Amino acid sequence: MPKIIDHDERRSHIMDVTLALIQRNGFGGATMREIAAEAGFANGSLKHYFPDKEAIILATWERELERQTQYVAEAVGDKRGFEALHELCLAALPLAPEATPAGRVLLSYWEISLGVRALYARYLEHLRGWKDVIHEHLEQARRDGEVATSLSDAEIADHLILLTVGATVLDQIGSEETVKEYQQTDLERYLDGLRVRA
Amino acid sequence: MPKIIDHDERRSHIMDVTLALIQRNGFGGATMREIAAEAGFANGSLKHYFPDKEAIILATWERELERQTQYVAEAVGDKRGFEALHELCLAALPLAPEATPAGRVLLSYWEISLGVRALYARYLEHLRGWKDVIHEHLEQARRDGEVATSLSDAEIADHLILLTVGATVLDQIGSEETVKEYQQTDLERYLDGLRVRA
Repeated sequence: MPKIIDHDERRSHIMDVTLALIQRNGFGGATMREIAAEAGFANGSLKHYFPDKEAIILATWERELERQTQYVAEAVGDKRGFEALHELCLAALPLAPEATPAGRVLLSYWEISLGVRALYARYLEHLRGWKDVIHEHLEQARRDGEVATSLSDAEIADHLILLTVGATVLDQIGSEETVKEYQQTDLERYLDGLRVRA
Repeated sequence: MPKIIDHDERRSHIMDVTLALIQRNGFGGATMREIAAEAGFANGSLKHYFPDKEAIILATWERELERQTQYVAEAVGDKRGFEALHELCLAALPLAPEATPAGRVLLSYWEISLGVRALYARYLEHLRGWKDVIHEHLEQARRDGEVATSLSDAEIADHLILLTVGATVLDQIGSEETVKEYQQTDLERYLDGLRVRA
């Protein structure tokens, strides 16, 4: 009986292996040869699943960004307005242990995306999606009378994104010299400053 | 007459070339072969100046971090206390046009330093130096009665570093989706919140 090959499962396995190699060694460690070896494929047979390395890299990046979006969306759940914004921002900070390997991948992709247009474009799309969700919750919060600030929604969105991006980098390259708890209190203080006083 | 070879000048030239290659193509584009070709050396002769690629990469990183420290120190000049802190933070944000290529190099090195202990250690040293200078100015500002805040110096230093790191990344990978001017007003607002009211 011929073995039934699950194409999607194989692709997913190749992406898992790619991600793990990037987490371990950055992009330098994720050559086609090493991906194939680690995934248990003969060197040429990766091509049955992905046309080239760029396709693997892009698919892995897509999946990673979707996961991050999903992770944050689950943290927000059915909350709305200010509470949703609060949950969203907390979930985007690298506070949970699983955020550190995810941030490692992000930093690698950021760097490589400066030279690979498709990766860069995909990240900008992610950033736009993130901004849209922040704007949505902020508008709700203003309509619900929870927020009173002279700052524009655009300024607030940029600030929140900047805090998260900065924290992600410092979690990777400065965790010995910076205090993670400050990032959360920083964020809380900023959000608190936007609120209507009771 | 034998040509006089300036060893330091040659090393400096190799570092310039390495930096330019990283700015153009990231680390993938800065192989020994390409550095040699671009610098006008025969492939093997780089070894007269640096033992291996890691030595070139580290020396270039050292020089780049020293330049950034120097750039910020010049912006501060002989100012002290709050004014010095203000100048320091503004100079560290990627507002000037020359900050963008410098940030490109920083992002590449951050990524690669996660796998190269010597590069990582060098960045932590830079981060410690940066924190020390922030602390020094803050302590002056407190002694001079310019600052009144319940935030600790450690929290303030972390926040200022985080803002700068986040802005550096967004200047590279999100400049189409974020507003650079907000970073400056963000910073000014934060610093303003630390000040004693007249």
